[in-house]
Amino acid sequence: MTTTALEALAGRAREASRRLAVSSSALKNEALRAAAELLETDAEAILAANQADLEQARAESLDDPALDRLRLTSARITAMATALRDVAALADPVGEVIEGWVRPNGLSVQRVRVPLGVVGVIYENRPNVTSDAAGLCVKAGNAVLLRGSSSALRSNRVIVEALRKGLVKAGLPDDGVALVEDTSRESAIAFMRLRGFIDCLIPRGGRALIDSLVENATVPYVLDGDGNCHVYVDQAADLAMAEEIVVNAKLSRPGVCNAAETLLVHRAVAERFLPRIAASLEGVELVGDSEVRRILPQVAPATEDDFAREFLGLKLAVGIVDDLDAALAHIARYGSGHSEAIVTTDVATAERFTREVDAAAVLVNASTRFVDGGEFGLGAEVGISTQKLHARGPMGVRELTCAKWVVRGNGQVRR
Amino acid sequence: MTTTALEALAGRAREASRRLAVSSSALKNEALRAAAELLETDAEAILAANQADLEQARAESLDDPALDRLRLTSARITAMATALRDVAALADPVGEVIEGWVRPNGLSVQRVRVPLGVVGVIYENRPNVTSDAAGLCVKAGNAVLLRGSSSALRSNRVIVEALRKGLVKAGLPDDGVALVEDTSRESAIAFMRLRGFIDCLIPRGGRALIDSLVENATVPYVLDGDGNCHVYVDQAADLAMAEEIVVNAKLSRPGVCNAAETLLVHRAVAERFLPRIAASLEGVELVGDSEVRRILPQVAPATEDDFAREFLGLKLAVGIVDDLDAALAHIARYGSGHSEAIVTTDVATAERFTREVDAAAVLVNASTRFVDGGEFGLGAEVGISTQKLHARGPMGVRELTCAKWVVRGNGQVRR
Repeated sequence: MTTTALEALAGRAREASRRLAVSSSALKNEALRAAAELLETDAEAILAANQADLEQARAESLDDPALDRLRLTSARITAMATALRDVAALADPVGEVIEGWVRPNGLSVQRVRVPLGVVGVIYENRPNVTSDAAGLCVKAGNAVLLRGSSSALRSNRVIVEALRKGLVKAGLPDDGVALVEDTSRESAIAFMRLRGFIDCLIPRGGRALIDSLVENATVPYVLDGDGNCHVYVDQAADLAMAEEIVVNAKLSRPGVCNAAETLLVHRAVAERFLPRIAASLEGVELVGDSEVRRILPQVAPATEDDFAREFLGLKLAVGIVDDLDAALAHIARYGSGHSEAIVTTDVATAERFTREVDAAAVLVNASTRFVDGGEFGLGAEVGISTQKLHARGPMGVRELTCAKWVVRGNGQVRR
Repeated sequence: MTTTALEALAGRAREASRRLAVSSSALKNEALRAAAELLETDAEAILAANQADLEQARAESLDDPALDRLRLTSARITAMATALRDVAALADPVGEVIEGWVRPNGLSVQRVRVPLGVVGVIYENRPNVTSDAAGLCVKAGNAVLLRGSSSALRSNRVIVEALRKGLVKAGLPDDGVALVEDTSRESAIAFMRLRGFIDCLIPRGGRALIDSLVENATVPYVLDGDGNCHVYVDQAADLAMAEEIVVNAKLSRPGVCNAAETLLVHRAVAERFLPRIAASLEGVELVGDSEVRRILPQVAPATEDDFAREFLGLKLAVGIVDDLDAALAHIARYGSGHSEAIVTTDVATAERFTREVDAAAVLVNASTRFVDGGEFGLGAEVGISTQKLHARGPMGVRELTCAKWVVRGNGQVRR
């Protein structure tokens, strides 16, 4: 795809975004529900396209986890349709008056929530992201440009077709959802440089994608970064609660960004807590600092890199800290600004932790696994932002909007 | 300045930002008021440094407007001190609970306003920006790295010294305000690439700076872009009101970003309105489309570039449009997304304009000149954002913060 062709596609999305921006909730929801129905009625075609994708992926020797992410089943298609209906049922963020007042000169000043315009999404080979991301974008009144992986191209084509038909059924422009079919590296760079066409780019992928984006993008973006999440077990922790939280944070779904990657334990409770948690985390590879290894000799030494990494699997780095200050310093040094938890019964310690840890989410006496749009009550999420500008933490439909100032007067001029 | 030296400076700012982030409003305000006093007591030294800057600038043949921007007077120093005291008097945005609720599982979920961390500001040769920007950043609990122009270096050094001493007087770290003294082009690029050190970069400068930033920056930034602002005089406009608004929008301060650059007039009122407004805008160079020139033969033809440009001076492009749709299309094509005004008595027309124009601010029956932090009631502003992410429109002290999710539980784990 040439840059010209890409710009033409993006230009059509921009035109469509103007109509979507002023469309009623009723029409947007109708489009989402029509798309959900089409996903279900076209399930056979989607599965056939996915089968072809899987065969090619196998021929290209993709590994099993990648094949699993790519694989669709009837149940997964039903889940995609259900997700679209759930998004349709959410409140429409567009038009919300975020705040407003009247100035002494009589000017009414309001900040009103409006769509972003055109949202770009770059993602890897999960075909469900295609409908999930598109659904959220349309709900928020945006057009969306989707750039999935080459391995999922056939699946994505059929899914996007259902979404476009859904828009048409509601009388909305089908260019509101568009797939970038050229998945070359050059096209990825060109996509990141569609300045004036894309209002917000959301990358859903690994470190290489993020690095490329930071280096090359000229469009605004929101980073969905790593989650090197810590649980700190304070000297004043309820150790039974701490055990349950650490096990949940590490084991309930080890491959996701809000899973715990490092356990920090206060020296005063280390002798009691470490043997207990090691037993509960059977099957998890523990690596620890020298103090941890004195208590748990079977644990391998943790390298500097172990403390800095997101394992995304059954591995946990463990450290002993002298006090809250040392825990805060460790998190400031190694944390990725995602989700950080403390277990403590001491209110002053809890308050210092929530104030001083610089992360998208800080949790007291709760599992890091709760950092999620659904769990927070935001409805579906399009990712979890680890940056500070625009969105921080779970990005729901509201984070796919921006604000506009609306000023109403009766002839005021500035003196 | 080598990248290493720049990173060392930024590293000290980051350390300072951790202390500032948890400092009380009382201490931050004490620092700002102490700095205001120091500006006044050190006025002689500031004026002497400024005199040296002015002499060098004259020797380097800076033009008169640039010399005027660079020049400090006793009155301007007093104004800088007053601005710091005004910022001290603003409400502290840090700690505000933006929203919060309790989930069915008993988790308390709150979104709390927190400082950004380290803010970078790149600006040109107005020395007052040094204290204004630093004051707002400190108020919001941030450290700030200031990179002014080489022509103002001596002035900026003395002003920054006052701010640093003010911090020390309040027991806060002086590295919370730091000046980047190397003003080479290489250092500007290195500054834009201080990823991990700068949480938000704010450029205050012209198109070349913005372009360089978009191309080179790896740190997050908020763009303070051009203001190609329109006033649309509808067929249902009160023409006396329209005249007053257009004159105010163009003439009250032609060199600023919220001044009007294009006047669009509905065909139905053009014959009546154009001669009248042309007379009121005496001294303004008008350029118009062919329809305008039929009514005002003395007006020179407007080029495509005239409609696309921010004149920042006594020039105004004028166009006649057939209807609201044509006005909206013109603004969508040429507008820079800053501030757009309509003059109309028709409520449906006003509502369509506010809904459909995609800009930071839309105004009904009011001058574009009101788009300003002070006029909106936000207190002082650090700039006006024309981008959609994070901040859009006037950026006050609140836009120098971000949010953090704080989750409090009593042992909840995710099932």
